[in-house]
Amino acid sequence: MAEDEMAEHINVKKSENFSEWYTQVIIKTGFVDYSEVSGCIVFLPPAYFAWQTISNAIDAEFKKIGVEDTYFPLLIPEKLLTKESEHFEGFVPEVAWVTRTGKTELEEKLAIRPTSETIMYKSFSKWIRSWRDLPMKYNQWNNVLRWEFKHPTPLIRSREFLWNEGHSVFATEEEAIAEREQIIGIYLKVLKDYFAVPGIVGRKSDNEKFAGAVASYSIEHMMPDGWALQGPDHHYDGQNFSKAFDITFLDREGKPVYAYQNTFAISTRELAVLVATHGDDRGLVLPPKLAYVQVVIVPIYKKDNREKVHAYAKKVYEQLNGHFRVKFDDRDGYSPGFKYNEWEMKGVPVRLEIGERDMSGNSVMAVRRDTGEKKPVKVTELGKELEHLMTAIHDNLYSKASDFLKSHVHIVDSYEDLKKTLKEKGGIVTAPWCGDRKCELTVKEETGAKITNIPIEPVKFGSKCVVCGNKSKFAANFARSY
Amino acid sequence: MAEDEMAEHINVKKSENFSEWYTQVIIKTGFVDYSEVSGCIVFLPPAYFAWQTISNAIDAEFKKIGVEDTYFPLLIPEKLLTKESEHFEGFVPEVAWVTRTGKTELEEKLAIRPTSETIMYKSFSKWIRSWRDLPMKYNQWNNVLRWEFKHPTPLIRSREFLWNEGHSVFATEEEAIAEREQIIGIYLKVLKDYFAVPGIVGRKSDNEKFAGAVASYSIEHMMPDGWALQGPDHHYDGQNFSKAFDITFLDREGKPVYAYQNTFAISTRELAVLVATHGDDRGLVLPPKLAYVQVVIVPIYKKDNREKVHAYAKKVYEQLNGHFRVKFDDRDGYSPGFKYNEWEMKGVPVRLEIGERDMSGNSVMAVRRDTGEKKPVKVTELGKELEHLMTAIHDNLYSKASDFLKSHVHIVDSYEDLKKTLKEKGGIVTAPWCGDRKCELTVKEETGAKITNIPIEPVKFGSKCVVCGNKSKFAANFARSY
Repeated sequence: MAEDEMAEHINVKKSENFSEWYTQVIIKTGFVDYSEVSGCIVFLPPAYFAWQTISNAIDAEFKKIGVEDTYFPLLIPEKLLTKESEHFEGFVPEVAWVTRTGKTELEEKLAIRPTSETIMYKSFSKWIRSWRDLPMKYNQWNNVLRWEFKHPTPLIRSREFLWNEGHSVFATEEEAIAEREQIIGIYLKVLKDYFAVPGIVGRKSDNEKFAGAVASYSIEHMMPDGWALQGPDHHYDGQNFSKAFDITFLDREGKPVYAYQNTFAISTRELAVLVATHGDDRGLVLPPKLAYVQVVIVPIYKKDNREKVHAYAKKVYEQLNGHFRVKFDDRDGYSPGFKYNEWEMKGVPVRLEIGERDMSGNSVMAVRRDTGEKKPVKVTELGKELEHLMTAIHDNLYSKASDFLKSHVHIVDSYEDLKKTLKEKGGIVTAPWCGDRKCELTVKEETGAKITNIPIEPVKFGSKCVVCGNKSKFAANFARSY
Repeated sequence: MAEDEMAEHINVKKSENFSEWYTQVIIKTGFVDYSEVSGCIVFLPPAYFAWQTISNAIDAEFKKIGVEDTYFPLLIPEKLLTKESEHFEGFVPEVAWVTRTGKTELEEKLAIRPTSETIMYKSFSKWIRSWRDLPMKYNQWNNVLRWEFKHPTPLIRSREFLWNEGHSVFATEEEAIAEREQIIGIYLKVLKDYFAVPGIVGRKSDNEKFAGAVASYSIEHMMPDGWALQGPDHHYDGQNFSKAFDITFLDREGKPVYAYQNTFAISTRELAVLVATHGDDRGLVLPPKLAYVQVVIVPIYKKDNREKVHAYAKKVYEQLNGHFRVKFDDRDGYSPGFKYNEWEMKGVPVRLEIGERDMSGNSVMAVRRDTGEKKPVKVTELGKELEHLMTAIHDNLYSKASDFLKSHVHIVDSYEDLKKTLKEKGGIVTAPWCGDRKCELTVKEETGAKITNIPIEPVKFGSKCVVCGNKSKFAANFARSY
């Protein structure tokens, strides 16, 4: 059988060169591609499908708690963007500016949104009048642009990305703060149920929090190279923006009060976590709910039994189609081995191999992508067995990812151990910290590790800050971070 | 009972000043709002919900025929945008240019996509290698920007809008052309089943077709003022772009061939058709499937029976919640009349009025937004009755809209009649046409009407072009058009 192209392979090991492995996997499997615009990528169907699926899942959860979807303009006038100075300074080096339309120079240049606080809050200020209008929980699913000058990496650090940006407004600080658990809960649940990925929830240090926030909370992930990567977040902005944008409401006594605000987001960066967490040396490994193709059927035949095997395989395909996202790879001119490699590389959770021997047993051979395990399954029980396999694969991926995360968190009690652990083991190193920015920056300067967050799960920690020796206030998670 | 604000009203009649009516309805009902960027609007939850619903419905139909979702960059390098000159010239006056990022001037300026042919096809050229890769049907749901200098009107002519852009590639002309019926069929079906809006399908004249297309087909709508408005479209681009962008594939004989391409789109402009078609002098009238709130419950009570009535109304709410998008308007301080007006203005399909009299009959009073019809309904039968009402309202709206469209199509056989009909009746005037661009432009110059399209439904038409008297080839639809 003549192959009309060479099979693609991932030719570097994940454990040896994660960065090169990552690039090969996302590009060679047709997950994303580079584009003609530096730092901006194309989301190919498997990547966009995963994003669409999780954004729909999150949106459904948002709706249950009263979050409403809106859409605000892409462009933000300069004077609006510069209104809240701390916020603006965080974004100014990364803003792409529209200065001309057609052949006309604009009088005021327009920013492509790096985030939409400023344009949204200008409207909020107009709309919100009384306590009756609150809470107001607006969200949008959109594209944003941050023209970062560091080396862009597809999905991890792309100049344009897709996300949700939630912007909620409350009458009281208590209500605003109470929202955090709901939103972080939704993100965690979707990460677990769809991505099969865990994370560490905690508060950002003041140095690392969002520009304009009072308190930022994040979900932090552990990448295969021992570096942390920040996932979804939720920011309590207090009255910072409501004062800058004059968002007041009349309370029940008719008194004007500045509103309390939150913002929250999950972005397509999370697809990088998906790929990095589950993939192996042969390519992508996709959890079934986010797999563009869940089941691939590969017939094994020779010239003389081609029709027979194809007919049988086609019947299996028709039985499964509509219940699973199933692909029948009926291409002639490619060997089964070539096809196995291709679909393994693309991360399809289950492969069904069908040859004449399987036909005679009225069965198929089911092969798991995550474990390689093979198992003959009766055609009559295939639907039920595949449902079972999908759950088993998902659970296995989540459990492996959780073990990996746990094994990469180290608790230390001295600066020597902090440095040694970061150097030798990487991962997240939890250490007692006094809360002083100076100590935080010392660690950053001397080890390259920042505080990813201060976990909300209780951690037993020493009584003295590992840097200055003063009384420790927090168990802080230090890590080198994307 | 003291009202703490004045009720909003639509204070102009749709039939007397459609343009002012339209603006009042979309703004006063909180459907969309103006923004700080001229010509760009905010989609508020009711508008975004309608768009989300129809884009999900269309996307599901697309997936059935193998259309796959992708996401390409927002920005297009100038040299790419100018590659296909006819296409480019159609868009150049409307392009917003990014010339600076942070404080750095870009070497090559970047266009915000007015449409994505150029950036997508550059990638297509790289990806498509053999007949095995075809057909390739890629789509994206995104935002585009066209900085039109004419007076922008929210939704109808907004500088930024949301749409789907489908871009399919085929090995043969026949396959490419055959896709049209599928896609137009999907758009028509969703227009009928969700928008409750009909349209006229036909081919664009060469003068009016899409820049770069061989043949454009559109669905044309009739607005209340007798002007036509173009809805979704499908373009057969032949090999125009494949030649400009070098999209070739090796056919089964190994010979390189330029591919055949289509593009197709539906945009948020369609929400303007929704509002304009069904709305009346009291405000929005929303078809149930696109109504953000489908059922509103308004309790009628006095001080002494407030608790009793509220408890009963709340039980009704709980019975319906989850089955319908239902709102219990339990605000104190507003009279029932005030609430009726507000929810009528917002276009809620069914209102349930609940007072003590209804309680004693174990019923509620159901009021239809479209006809004003009132009907007592037993609480035990409410779910079933509401299902029935939703269908009845949808069907009534579609039937009224179809009648309106039919009554605004006039067939004429002479230039005098064409001019007279356009002047006195407006609407769409079908007339025999020779196919010559000169005659088309004469009509445009003398009447302001262009050819909206050449209907594919058979029309009996005269043998001579109404303008030049030469042999007629087509029944062309002339109309003044948005």
